[in-house]
Amino acid sequence: MDITHIEHLGIAVKSIEACLPYYEGVLGLKCYSIEVVEDQKVRTAFFKVGQTKIELLEPTADDSTIARFIEKKGEGIHHIAFAVPSVREALEEVADKGVQLIDKAPRPGAEGLHIAFLHPKSTCGVLTELCM
Amino acid sequence: MDITHIEHLGIAVKSIEACLPYYEGVLGLKCYSIEVVEDQKVRTAFFKVGQTKIELLEPTADDSTIARFIEKKGEGIHHIAFAVPSVREALEEVADKGVQLIDKAPRPGAEGLHIAFLHPKSTCGVLTELCM
Repeated sequence: MDITHIEHLGIAVKSIEACLPYYEGVLGLKCYSIEVVEDQKVRTAFFKVGQTKIELLEPTADDSTIARFIEKKGEGIHHIAFAVPSVREALEEVADKGVQLIDKAPRPGAEGLHIAFLHPKSTCGVLTELCM
Repeated sequence: MDITHIEHLGIAVKSIEACLPYYEGVLGLKCYSIEVVEDQKVRTAFFKVGQTKIELLEPTADDSTIARFIEKKGEGIHHIAFAVPSVREALEEVADKGVQLIDKAPRPGAEGLHIAFLHPKSTCGVLTELCM
């Protein structure tokens, strides 16, 4: 697979507003977009750090996967997203190698990306997204 | 603070060897270094992805902080490390802004880096390292 870079890191937070003073005031990063992704029941805030974006993920409902993640593990890094030239081809390749998929086909994500998740059971415990 | 990029991501794993087939065989990344960091009681394996390294962290003792992390939260992303021009100056700056520090001064880390950790209580739940 031809991964070019880490496209973003998803970080689960209870409240984007509560974290802005840290990300903007302390780290000096600039939030350039806040977006709701309805089907994932999350509100997202984006910051750029070099090649990689930080995506804060705030649950918009109690049954959001992010709400369940925070309940189980606390706030923290939720997933890593690798940029690949073709999500569809990368999915076929990893499925052939026995990786368990959460998404069998690419679907729309935040920022107009095509995304698909691999199951952490197959990725040494790290929820992993492929995107382009 | 002038963060240039994400220097690395630390990922806690039970066994580096058990994860090499995924990182090398599935993701197509190349492990370029395996190193023991005695004072942190970890064995580390490094991969490069664009600007950022992935650092697998395998505990070498039951009382390693990585062993305790895995026991509590399972395998997964342990910390994020931001590259800064001066760790000492960055530490002073964030301390002035009220961030709780784990390391009050830079100390040696893997790969000859100077590193210091910020406490996740002050960083929206993400164990955060500054390094250069």
